[in-house]
Amino acid sequence: MDIQEFVCNSIGNWRSQRSAHHLAFGHFEAVQSEIDITSLSIDAPEVIELCKANDVDPQTAVSPFRMAWEGQSDWEDSEAVKGNCVLIPIPDSDRPNCGKLLRERGYAEEMPAIGEYSFTDDGTFVLITSYDRAAAEEKIWFVNPNLRCRVSLIKTNTGTGVITASFSSEIRQTPKS
Amino acid sequence: MDIQEFVCNSIGNWRSQRSAHHLAFGHFEAVQSEIDITSLSIDAPEVIELCKANDVDPQTAVSPFRMAWEGQSDWEDSEAVKGNCVLIPIPDSDRPNCGKLLRERGYAEEMPAIGEYSFTDDGTFVLITSYDRAAAEEKIWFVNPNLRCRVSLIKTNTGTGVITASFSSEIRQTPKS
Repeated sequence: MDIQEFVCNSIGNWRSQRSAHHLAFGHFEAVQSEIDITSLSIDAPEVIELCKANDVDPQTAVSPFRMAWEGQSDWEDSEAVKGNCVLIPIPDSDRPNCGKLLRERGYAEEMPAIGEYSFTDDGTFVLITSYDRAAAEEKIWFVNPNLRCRVSLIKTNTGTGVITASFSSEIRQTPKS
Repeated sequence: MDIQEFVCNSIGNWRSQRSAHHLAFGHFEAVQSEIDITSLSIDAPEVIELCKANDVDPQTAVSPFRMAWEGQSDWEDSEAVKGNCVLIPIPDSDRPNCGKLLRERGYAEEMPAIGEYSFTDDGTFVLITSYDRAAAEEKIWFVNPNLRCRVSLIKTNTGTGVITASFSSEIRQTPKS
């Protein structure tokens, strides 16, 4: 698995069930959402802009994409969660299947973020992102072309304590045969 | 990571939060339970008995253990779920970090089962078990010595459709420093 194949497999419209475990108080949160992943051109203005903001040569970008989501949590009377984000993989020149992932907006915090990605030998995408006050560790893998699993851990920024562990199962809405 | 280290890291008393996603109807199930994992001696009668029942030489067993659990699901008015099970790893002689796992009782079905385990390069334990009418795929990894994550998929026995995807976060009750 490389980043091009991984992004290509991810393009589409997904129905997601996400469970978040808030570990300190043993709370379960359930989120149902729809996720749209669309590919972007290397020349798209938002791609060039995000590369420039990170002092990265847009020519080194591979398979940029946009992720949009809209969902509903059962956490109290929360409003619908809705957003979208440009993501740009920048493969390392010297390490195969590793690189940086530029994000217009973070997962743990609402600010631009740069993650470090790699793949395990069974094709799991692993992404580590450090934020000001937290760190996120995500693992994403395909069970089959129409089912993607994602485990996300939010840690304190020293990396020791895990605050939230969450799991998403994402089903492709128009299955590939 | 090898099977001895993995079992050694797992010994202890854990508080588990488990979310099961029943994919066909998008249902969330939340289970809270306590899990006790204790090591067993190679000479323990239950180890020898389970090896014999599987025509396996008890001398090839490594780090047998017992898992006991007691929990409560929010699925309707379900009763407490309680049980325990002897598990015996039998490493392959010719493949490093791979082997069979004998189970006194299955995960997808209440019958003895033999799974095939392996480890990925990032230390994730992967277990595939085939049952009469289903197949289970489990991934277990340690985030730190006191937090274990587990993703379990129940598939149809042809391996194509995934019926249930569940995620457990397991916190050690007496943390290792």
